Amino acid sequence: MANDNKKEISKMDERIKKQIEFALEIDKEKNIFRQTHLTNHGRNENDAEHAWHLAIMAYLLKEYSNENIDIARVMIMCLIHDIVEIDAGDTYAYDEEGLKTQKAREEKAKERIFSILPLDQKNDFIAIFDEFEENKTPEAKFAHAMDNFQPLILNNSNDGKDWRDHKVKGEQVYNRQNKTKEGSKKLFDIVDIILKDNIKKGNLK
Amino acid sequence: MANDNKKEISKMDERIKKQIEFALEIDKEKNIFRQTHLTNHGRNENDAEHAWHLAIMAYLLKEYSNENIDIARVMIMCLIHDIVEIDAGDTYAYDEEGLKTQKAREEKAKERIFSILPLDQKNDFIAIFDEFEENKTPEAKFAHAMDNFQPLILNNSNDGKDWRDHKVKGEQVYNRQNKTKEGSKKLFDIVDIILKDNIKKGNLK
Repeated sequence: MANDNKKEISKMDERIKKQIEFALEIDKEKNIFRQTHLTNHGRNENDAEHAWHLAIMAYLLKEYSNENIDIARVMIMCLIHDIVEIDAGDTYAYDEEGLKTQKAREEKAKERIFSILPLDQKNDFIAIFDEFEENKTPEAKFAHAMDNFQPLILNNSNDGKDWRDHKVKGEQVYNRQNKTKEGSKKLFDIVDIILKDNIKKGNLK
Repeated sequence: MANDNKKEISKMDERIKKQIEFALEIDKEKNIFRQTHLTNHGRNENDAEHAWHLAIMAYLLKEYSNENIDIARVMIMCLIHDIVEIDAGDTYAYDEEGLKTQKAREEKAKERIFSILPLDQKNDFIAIFDEFEENKTPEAKFAHAMDNFQPLILNNSNDGKDWRDHKVKGEQVYNRQNKTKEGSKKLFDIVDIILKDNIKKGNLK
């Protein structure tokens, strides 16, 4: 923000200034690009678009959650789960080197970005973020199911091109998709149909 | 989706097939670009990114709603409110010609896109969409406040460039921002500070 704007915003109270600063900071998530491509063989998807898609899909598919869920909690979890990638970057699900340092990079980012907020909201947002990461509650498990299911259906709609380009193995995808089963057995059945088909076609090794 | 994929998905039940088809259809919203630009003088923003931003801001700023709100309802409203633009395109808030035909274009799109869903979900999504459009409930009013406040802070962070480029008048923005007041008097006070400053600087005529 330019200095002049900063001066004007100084007329606002401290709390709302911090909230607006956070709202502007997370705008950067729209420039963090993922390995997944949009449908119709489109460009790479960014984190903000991905998070938007997950939150709608959570609402759309909530009937398939294994357990009762608070859908507001699942949606906000989906919406913010990748904010740390503003600093830490996107780590591809099958990038084994990147995965080794992912946790440390994301912890540092979490502290910096959520510290922009008023303290009570910093604590709230970190609690939501950590709940997703720990993956123990029904809400976190269903949010993870969305985080796995969404790129899978996009990639399947593009004839498995992302898997082919990265030479991903069927076994790797099944390992990851086991998290889907914890959130939704029904969606895992669909995953299984899609993966068997892509293995048969040679899209997955 | 390729024919082979369609065949595989035929093993799934009809309900989930429709839900997945809808999830893939709305992916197109990531290619509908708005007049608003990202922070740091970035590129144009797309509808999916915009909707993601609104839903997080609704959660972040919910304490400023004039009335008690069901935040899950506000978030899903924010997330889906622009889906019709997949067919109808984005209509700039200050495009007076476009605004004349907007309603008819969006009604047609609404019918086509939500008809992909199972009937009960078609009805649910249309009810959410219509509630936003009618702008009578506390949830719809707060969602509208977000829909106005988000582009305003982005544009302000870019020194009002979007307003300058489109030669927008202060009066036009105030007319639109009156909707913000209906959802949040507190946020309207912030809007007022920002607009007065941009008028003073000549960014708004």
